[in-house]
Amino acid sequence: MNSEFINPFIIALLNVIETMAQTKLTPGKPQKKGNNQAGGDVSGLIGMVGDDIKGSLSISFEESLVLEIMHKMLGEKPEGINSDVNDMVGEITNMICGGAKNDLDQKGYNFGMATPMIVSGKNHTIDHQVDGKKMVMPFTHPSGNLYLEMCFNK
Amino acid sequence: MNSEFINPFIIALLNVIETMAQTKLTPGKPQKKGNNQAGGDVSGLIGMVGDDIKGSLSISFEESLVLEIMHKMLGEKPEGINSDVNDMVGEITNMICGGAKNDLDQKGYNFGMATPMIVSGKNHTIDHQVDGKKMVMPFTHPSGNLYLEMCFNK
Repeated sequence: MNSEFINPFIIALLNVIETMAQTKLTPGKPQKKGNNQAGGDVSGLIGMVGDDIKGSLSISFEESLVLEIMHKMLGEKPEGINSDVNDMVGEITNMICGGAKNDLDQKGYNFGMATPMIVSGKNHTIDHQVDGKKMVMPFTHPSGNLYLEMCFNK
Repeated sequence: MNSEFINPFIIALLNVIETMAQTKLTPGKPQKKGNNQAGGDVSGLIGMVGDDIKGSLSISFEESLVLEIMHKMLGEKPEGINSDVNDMVGEITNMICGGAKNDLDQKGYNFGMATPMIVSGKNHTIDHQVDGKKMVMPFTHPSGNLYLEMCFNK
């Protein structure tokens, strides 16, 4: 996976969270993924398919951070992860992928996005299966962390 | 979602499990999905994208059933869900979608499959987000149950 392909997702993630929720995340160091631990309590997952691109992406939020984002975006702070939080995570996942897709289209990478799926549950693990490299990148914030995982044949 | 579109997935699921693991599942009654409970302990998820098709599918296994299938397919029965089980669930998910895709191609439904993602964890929930109907269909077996969930704009 080359940085020309990865960077638009990182930029879109930072932009979407800052624009929608006035929340500035600090990007950490990208790592090859060693285990399957999602690292979060609610995750937005999306598959992508193009003529010669295949892959999947997940964005996993710690509960404390996702509730803070919910509070900033919608003015309400539920006691835990509920269907409204799931919907917001789905929207955020869609916006991040859509933003990256627009950018990548101009660079000649063409693919379609499937519809997002939201997984919630303490300590769930996600295993992306593709013949390619897996990358996980942490983003930190005083309220909690977020993990972007990507797995593509690029 | 019409039955012409759903049935190839049901047939492929029954075929794959019977052929690969000599395990005959009993199909239950399809239902509109009311809550997000996956109903299983390990799930294979896949997104699909076509010119006018968008959607996602998940196949959730109860632990007891997935370990029995592992035993039948590979002759070994691990004590719990591990990365080998995840890989097998990914393979099965791919084979079921691939089988249904071949069938649907001939009926004029054309779409590409993203790469599968495997979620494991007790009591995890999956929320498919698409502007369309959601369907969940149980399959029963003395060893445990399996749930097929589909969410498409068809």
